Amino acid sequence: MPDGAPLAILLSIGTEILLGEIVDSNAAHLAGELARLGLDLRAVRQLGDERATIAAAFGEARAAADLVIASGGLGPTHDDLTREGLADALSETLTPDENLEEELRRRFAAYGPMPTSNLRQALRVPSAHALPNPIGSAPGWWVDRDRSVVVLLPGVPAEMRRMWTEQVVPRLESRFALRPLHVRTVKTFGIGESAAAEALEGLLDAPGEGIAAGIYARDDGVHLRFSTRDDASMLDGPVDRSRQLLGEHVYGTDQETLPLVALSALAAHGVGSLASVESGTAGALLAILAEANGSPVTYAGGVLIADGHDSAVAPSADAVLRLGLLPQDAHGRSRVQVSVDGATLLPPTETRIHGSGPQRQRRAAFAALDTVRRALG
Amino acid sequence: MPDGAPLAILLSIGTEILLGEIVDSNAAHLAGELARLGLDLRAVRQLGDERATIAAAFGEARAAADLVIASGGLGPTHDDLTREGLADALSETLTPDENLEEELRRRFAAYGPMPTSNLRQALRVPSAHALPNPIGSAPGWWVDRDRSVVVLLPGVPAEMRRMWTEQVVPRLESRFALRPLHVRTVKTFGIGESAAAEALEGLLDAPGEGIAAGIYARDDGVHLRFSTRDDASMLDGPVDRSRQLLGEHVYGTDQETLPLVALSALAAHGVGSLASVESGTAGALLAILAEANGSPVTYAGGVLIADGHDSAVAPSADAVLRLGLLPQDAHGRSRVQVSVDGATLLPPTETRIHGSGPQRQRRAAFAALDTVRRALG
Repeated sequence: MPDGAPLAILLSIGTEILLGEIVDSNAAHLAGELARLGLDLRAVRQLGDERATIAAAFGEARAAADLVIASGGLGPTHDDLTREGLADALSETLTPDENLEEELRRRFAAYGPMPTSNLRQALRVPSAHALPNPIGSAPGWWVDRDRSVVVLLPGVPAEMRRMWTEQVVPRLESRFALRPLHVRTVKTFGIGESAAAEALEGLLDAPGEGIAAGIYARDDGVHLRFSTRDDASMLDGPVDRSRQLLGEHVYGTDQETLPLVALSALAAHGVGSLASVESGTAGALLAILAEANGSPVTYAGGVLIADGHDSAVAPSADAVLRLGLLPQDAHGRSRVQVSVDGATLLPPTETRIHGSGPQRQRRAAFAALDTVRRALG
Repeated sequence: MPDGAPLAILLSIGTEILLGEIVDSNAAHLAGELARLGLDLRAVRQLGDERATIAAAFGEARAAADLVIASGGLGPTHDDLTREGLADALSETLTPDENLEEELRRRFAAYGPMPTSNLRQALRVPSAHALPNPIGSAPGWWVDRDRSVVVLLPGVPAEMRRMWTEQVVPRLESRFALRPLHVRTVKTFGIGESAAAEALEGLLDAPGEGIAAGIYARDDGVHLRFSTRDDASMLDGPVDRSRQLLGEHVYGTDQETLPLVALSALAAHGVGSLASVESGTAGALLAILAEANGSPVTYAGGVLIADGHDSAVAPSADAVLRLGLLPQDAHGRSRVQVSVDGATLLPPTETRIHGSGPQRQRRAAFAALDTVRRALG
């Protein structure tokens, strides 16, 4: 993050988070968004539904950051106290907003009478500007006072994300002088994280002036991530160098995905429609193929064969991708058998993966697609 | 949480969390564990890999809580600064621990020479007791000083969870006077969250003295959760009352799952083996059936038919469960068609679900299992 980027703090509010009842996916989403926009996120704090705690957290965060974003605690019930907490921190008083009340009544008209508890959602402090929520009853707030901005967002992820994109991002872009982040990603499969780092000969430690580099192990392989707030073309160098050094392990960059690269390779060999047969994977391969939007190959469907049942009839298609995931050995490795029949495009091939649980199953599916990509790409 | 429970604060350390690169699932796991054990989690703080920030966070957390648990930042590289931050907060000095060094060298012996950077993982402050990490290179720390306990855990989830269970939980149980939480869960399908709350006639608001109640919408239906730190048998009342009031919507309690309840109903009707055929779901049903451990019915496998392909041969079995998920209507509802053929156990039946994305697909699969459970249970 460059010097001078505005500082941000996130507050995730809800006792259910502190009880471990839900994973706070909002924080991760907003953190990624802030990085992209060019704000420097200093801390995330998760706190329970307690008015004094919330007020203190807003007070501290406003003193430390240019932007405070809070999600959660905007519901209609007595334990939704984010509005009250912020009002206390601002020493302002909550009063009913007639427009918000009318909006709420209109919203409920279709369903019958509005519970009176929902009127709490029409309360507002004088310095708050309400942010409409087209898909829920909790309006958000935008408060710009004393040189810091506080944004309140609903905790329901779909409502939060839509309000963020439509209402908050444009306001942030005009309120702060931001230098957005340019990002390039190089995607590999078949090489481990430390082996990839070694093969890159120090590129990750010194990707160039003004460029940040990261390496991440995902189910679909090890990804390299280069980013800068300067000129986007500065990233071409490290991207090209990575491709050179990692060679055949690289299957794509940026928006390219392993399923689409593998399916495109099949299409280039004349495959118009594909079916799949798999075992040991709980259907990981067919789930990935069914969700591969934009594929040049029609997916006809897939079969999961349960353990100990060794035959199945695949849906009819030009080619059938077969995957068998065998049990783990003592070193945690699993054998993965892959073939493509129909046009005998890929004779039975074996590869190995690491991992356990659902991750192991998804990795086996990606290993099958990688095998296809290497053989036919 | 009862008065007098020890107070806890969690610190999740890692710049990758603040960049939104990873979801902090450790915090949710530890939060659930703390609630179960009887510790009162006051806040979770996520912070970046900055020595001064980490030191300040440890200082504040130690002043405010009886127990501070930090995960992340124990790796070998220069940006792993949790050890340094805590040493600063304690005003203690890091020195090499010979036993830890030997342990690390033994660990690396199988792989070749140990990178010198890993020696950082053998550093320790005098008041820290090292916690062994049998599956990774980062040892944990247990620091009991000045009436508060600080625990350092590795950030890798598998390493963190194992160290937590094997090393930390027993120490917490002997260090603090804890009153563990007793929990009962009532599981429903086919009724919404607010409709369930209404049918429960105030039971959730007043579940009884010393009892907490919660309601959660999950893919496998709405769950009610009753908990107490007093006598476990106190929970029988609200559990029985919920069953009474919610009637046929209740499919089980506690460890009972919708797949196992549905499969048991099929077994009771003489089904020894089952296959599945589904469409519109990206394989959600076969994934659930493949993972249903302890089923009295053998799962022979399943077929996903892609959109527009309307026939398939199911793996051979006593009965075939068929599921079709149709597109969403303007109100966000989807039609779900379910049947069980083979023994014509369940004629084609239609139900409706709400939701979008992968959640909608999993809900359709659970709706199919619920349809079976209601018809045959």
